[in-house]
Amino acid sequence: MSVDLEGAMQIALEEANLARGTSSPNPPVGAVVIDLDGEVVGRGHTQAPGGAHAEVMALAEAGAAARHSTVVCTLEPCAHTGRTGPCTEAIIKAEVARVVYAVTDPDPEAAGGAAVLREAGVEVIDGLLQTEARQGALKPWLFAQDNERPFVTWKIGQSLDGQIAAEDGSSQWVTSPDARAEVHEMRAHIDAIIVGAGTVRNDNPRLTARDSDGKDLPRQPLRVVVSNSGRLMPDAAIFDRTAPTLLGVGPATSHQHVDGLRADGIDTVVSGTSVSEGIDLHALLQTLFERGVVHAVVEGGPTLAGTFVSSGLVDEIITYIAPKLLLSGMWPALRGYGVSSIDDAVELDVRDVRRVGNDIRITANPIWT
Amino acid sequence: MSVDLEGAMQIALEEANLARGTSSPNPPVGAVVIDLDGEVVGRGHTQAPGGAHAEVMALAEAGAAARHSTVVCTLEPCAHTGRTGPCTEAIIKAEVARVVYAVTDPDPEAAGGAAVLREAGVEVIDGLLQTEARQGALKPWLFAQDNERPFVTWKIGQSLDGQIAAEDGSSQWVTSPDARAEVHEMRAHIDAIIVGAGTVRNDNPRLTARDSDGKDLPRQPLRVVVSNSGRLMPDAAIFDRTAPTLLGVGPATSHQHVDGLRADGIDTVVSGTSVSEGIDLHALLQTLFERGVVHAVVEGGPTLAGTFVSSGLVDEIITYIAPKLLLSGMWPALRGYGVSSIDDAVELDVRDVRRVGNDIRITANPIWT
Repeated sequence: MSVDLEGAMQIALEEANLARGTSSPNPPVGAVVIDLDGEVVGRGHTQAPGGAHAEVMALAEAGAAARHSTVVCTLEPCAHTGRTGPCTEAIIKAEVARVVYAVTDPDPEAAGGAAVLREAGVEVIDGLLQTEARQGALKPWLFAQDNERPFVTWKIGQSLDGQIAAEDGSSQWVTSPDARAEVHEMRAHIDAIIVGAGTVRNDNPRLTARDSDGKDLPRQPLRVVVSNSGRLMPDAAIFDRTAPTLLGVGPATSHQHVDGLRADGIDTVVSGTSVSEGIDLHALLQTLFERGVVHAVVEGGPTLAGTFVSSGLVDEIITYIAPKLLLSGMWPALRGYGVSSIDDAVELDVRDVRRVGNDIRITANPIWT
Repeated sequence: MSVDLEGAMQIALEEANLARGTSSPNPPVGAVVIDLDGEVVGRGHTQAPGGAHAEVMALAEAGAAARHSTVVCTLEPCAHTGRTGPCTEAIIKAEVARVVYAVTDPDPEAAGGAAVLREAGVEVIDGLLQTEARQGALKPWLFAQDNERPFVTWKIGQSLDGQIAAEDGSSQWVTSPDARAEVHEMRAHIDAIIVGAGTVRNDNPRLTARDSDGKDLPRQPLRVVVSNSGRLMPDAAIFDRTAPTLLGVGPATSHQHVDGLRADGIDTVVSGTSVSEGIDLHALLQTLFERGVVHAVVEGGPTLAGTFVSSGLVDEIITYIAPKLLLSGMWPALRGYGVSSIDDAVELDVRDVRRVGNDIRITANPIWT
């Protein structure tokens, strides 16, 4: 089957999806090699850090067929040597005739690939399906580069009357098995899950990504617990060492206590105080970014989620509404500050509404003005 | 255009919709007269109380063409003389050959129409599209006959974080203009709107059905305010006499106060105390049913709506979710009792999810076990 350039880019975008959440801090890129007849002779996506980039994977599959071919990829090929050699070098060495990409690399270190290729006599076309590529697998990575912090998704399961728990605090299985399966699928494609100390105390969750049999998946996101005081049960499930865990504490935690936590082998970072007198989430997110987290999901309770929203630090909302009434009135999805009147409400752009099992999933982006 | 019996019934079902909310306490029925070639020669729906029933309207339109025709109607023709003569008489007089209906009349007084018709030599077929008819315009009326109380819809507008107001209580225009237009359209097709005293005090709404220019529609539902103490501002908008208003008070209201309200021209009913120590809503609904209310909509705040749900007195939920975050955490859609743990949650059957303007409308039925 032969494809045109746009068809090849569509395939590259699908390839890129396979790298979501496994390539961080590198961008999840997809690449396709097509020969002069438009036949796909190679495809690939970014491997885990230290592994090959998408273009190198695709060229390896193409082998000798890469000569005089066109490489179609979602991001500008890199021109720098990190843990792997520059992709531009591999492309030139394979005697590729033409490179077509969607998005220019915003990373000043890695950029300049197009210029290097042109200098070497390779024809370069950029901007093909750029909008689609920016909304696809690359979206959190591009956001993180621009903002020097991870892209933050707030995930929430609530009843139709807007409650996350019943009067006695019980909340297990508010949402349906299908919704829970989607959440585990999502966990496999992101870099960190953030919860508050209240969630650890009330629900004691493991926060791992599991398959349909309940078995841990091979790759686990970083588990992040935010606690102003740093006081948590030492036997909490998140400290079970089956997946990496980071404890973010606030200035209410003494140096001595931080030293104790670290001596216990608990990876602990201290962040300052924000205007809300809670932990400075902006500082925490910068720390996560420095540690290679590109996409984080907040699964916390009303206080933590409310502080993220009030701080303007939520970029996407995924809410599962279960067909249930809980009538408690005391377990809202959010408790925040800064919205005293209806005129100050945070407006949302609804991107998608669909049924997931018995639940209704709404995906929306806050409009920060 | 000629139609078969099922096609004729579909037209009758559409006709019935035109009678929704204007026929109470009579059932909203649609009727179609087809001649021997299957041509529609007459159609009609139940008029306001005292006016003609659907069959009589359709026969009048058919005139001489009714002879040897088939009358297709959504409900069994009535055999009793109320404010109008029996439909069976009009059918026999018009020399109709055959009557096809969807639903047998459950009202013991009006029933027996089929037997009367058969005795007069008219062929009778029943049960055609019965399921559709039971889910259509007749639904609230059939429910009310079975339960001796109105069908109750709880209508609610809330933010994505499940709040009906911001921190300061402001709630005007949580939902979009399209959703508000739908609410006014709904008000034109129901018999009563029920709110609590808190809604009157906080929002002072008129609760009338208005057109897109804000003008009151010709027919207005009964405005019902529930107040345990009976203490309301005498200049509240609902007492403006532009539409009928009923005040439902609880046993906390003294006889003297009730007499005073009635002397002021305020139609007041007293109901006993329910298990929740609020007003006995079951008794109130029975009073409304006796007054001819077939379909009531609860538009109250969290306490009133919560009491309706806790009492098992909500039959349908229509919720508009606005793409907004209000972060207050203190204005839930519901505050009720009887659900202390997640296992006691009221389960819902979601019937419809759709976008209405910027909002998301979810229609669901509680599953009372």
